[in-house]
Amino acid sequence: MGLAQSPDPLPSWKDTPSREAILAFVDQVTDKTSADYVAPAERIATFDNDGTLWSEKPLYFQLMFAIDRVKMLAPQHPDWETQEPYASLLKGDTKTFATGGMRAIGELLKTTHTGMTATEFEALVSDWLASARHPTTGRAYTEMVYQPMLELLDYLRSNGFKTFIVSGGGLDFMRPWVEKVYGIPPEQVVGSSRRTVYEVREGKPVLVRLPEIAFVDDKAGKPVGIHTHIGRRPLMAVGNSDGDLEMMQYTAAGEGPRLMVYVHHTDEAREWAYDRDSAVGRFDKGLDEARARGWTVIDMKRDWKVIYPDPKP
Amino acid sequence: MGLAQSPDPLPSWKDTPSREAILAFVDQVTDKTSADYVAPAERIATFDNDGTLWSEKPLYFQLMFAIDRVKMLAPQHPDWETQEPYASLLKGDTKTFATGGMRAIGELLKTTHTGMTATEFEALVSDWLASARHPTTGRAYTEMVYQPMLELLDYLRSNGFKTFIVSGGGLDFMRPWVEKVYGIPPEQVVGSSRRTVYEVREGKPVLVRLPEIAFVDDKAGKPVGIHTHIGRRPLMAVGNSDGDLEMMQYTAAGEGPRLMVYVHHTDEAREWAYDRDSAVGRFDKGLDEARARGWTVIDMKRDWKVIYPDPKP
Repeated sequence: MGLAQSPDPLPSWKDTPSREAILAFVDQVTDKTSADYVAPAERIATFDNDGTLWSEKPLYFQLMFAIDRVKMLAPQHPDWETQEPYASLLKGDTKTFATGGMRAIGELLKTTHTGMTATEFEALVSDWLASARHPTTGRAYTEMVYQPMLELLDYLRSNGFKTFIVSGGGLDFMRPWVEKVYGIPPEQVVGSSRRTVYEVREGKPVLVRLPEIAFVDDKAGKPVGIHTHIGRRPLMAVGNSDGDLEMMQYTAAGEGPRLMVYVHHTDEAREWAYDRDSAVGRFDKGLDEARARGWTVIDMKRDWKVIYPDPKP
Repeated sequence: MGLAQSPDPLPSWKDTPSREAILAFVDQVTDKTSADYVAPAERIATFDNDGTLWSEKPLYFQLMFAIDRVKMLAPQHPDWETQEPYASLLKGDTKTFATGGMRAIGELLKTTHTGMTATEFEALVSDWLASARHPTTGRAYTEMVYQPMLELLDYLRSNGFKTFIVSGGGLDFMRPWVEKVYGIPPEQVVGSSRRTVYEVREGKPVLVRLPEIAFVDDKAGKPVGIHTHIGRRPLMAVGNSDGDLEMMQYTAAGEGPRLMVYVHHTDEAREWAYDRDSAVGRFDKGLDEARARGWTVIDMKRDWKVIYPDPKP
């Protein structure tokens, strides 16, 4: 790298209109001589997580965690051998599990994600991530983050942006690892959550995770989560599915320039290709609206030189 | 100010044990050679608002706002002349209003704080703060913040701390002004909130404030609010009432050094003097526990040279 010239801030991005739109937007809002200059405090960038910062196939990775936990807990629950949705999961039959829809997922998450303290849950997530491997890539899940997005996060931060995650995934599932992996601190994570209560157990204050859902940070919940947690409208929002559409609309409705970026999964060879017909990460209404309104749509196959970071040595 | 010597970071604090405890703690956790060194990312300081950063008498200022709003809305509600809690408030009889307890306060807040969009509510708060004056000091409410606390916030931030508000007050009541007044950005405010929903009205996305309470950030709610919003245990917590006690306990239960600071209202001449018997800002169990555990208790009369900032010219 020459001393006189800054290095390319987005080396894993091909020279396409997506990259150009991002660079032009950042220049526009950070140029003090521009009429569209935005003060650093207002440079809020919100990123969806599943399918936007890391992969989400064959299932959201949080569900992969939940399924592995069912297997761990099974010896204590002999009734699960015949009881759905556990019976299917224990047989490795995610297809039958999937026919149970949201009810089966809700049951699975309740069983595996509640009843313990916040500290205990954090340890479960960290331990799982340290050892679990993705069924087809063989990678650690945290090595299935998108290298171009890591670069984008760094690039935005180096231009005074504050980067947030705004995900339908569980707040406490993301918190243990996002700082290390994305450079996003826990206080900049917005997500779905369970009702949590404060208790003193044997003289020690603990936070206990209850089964009731406190907040669903998806679809129309995302602008609400952003408002409640951040209190400012994003200057830029990045997502990949219909679950992100309201966040995009809310962002676009702000005054002055705003950048809405959708990731389109088009790369069957290096990642996955899916959009309108996918149960996980459906991208249908969002794709139509993005095209109609001229939002930036990243074509993973066309726009990205690499998908994942080089594996850790 | 000499160039060779740093200026006193807490000029409005008298040279007493409270000040000494704060300076010693900050030195301890920021000294890289200390065994108790804490990385900047973990330097989280949480501040209660009412009675900790600004005054709270004769009533929480948010209630003063609500009462003024009742007066504004009264012409559209002729039934309020005979209907409690409005009738008392319209006659200026806060004593009778107070006999209605939490039910009356709940009714008052519901009527004055919900049914509008988040943007509309923000404008109501900003407009009120610009013109309202406190009944006994004649000051703008935002000029009834504590000068020593403004200095403490600055001092902590200049030592790498991230300062948060964690208040029982309304999130959206605080957000419009805390950045300007305290230097705390909206994303670092944790508070009580109403259920808020996303709607598209005449093609424009809006967030609508509903009557249902979403979260009460008081007492045992404070550690939950901290966990949900910040996701890290505070290194330091500052409060003034029993409503802050669980936040203190949760903070104190962390590993390594932690600083718990209580503000004791002891200055009848310059502010107010109250503790165990006060309906607003009761400080009873908290005072006992602070003394028993050796937490720092600021005596406003003894420890602070001035209370409020010099009035704006």
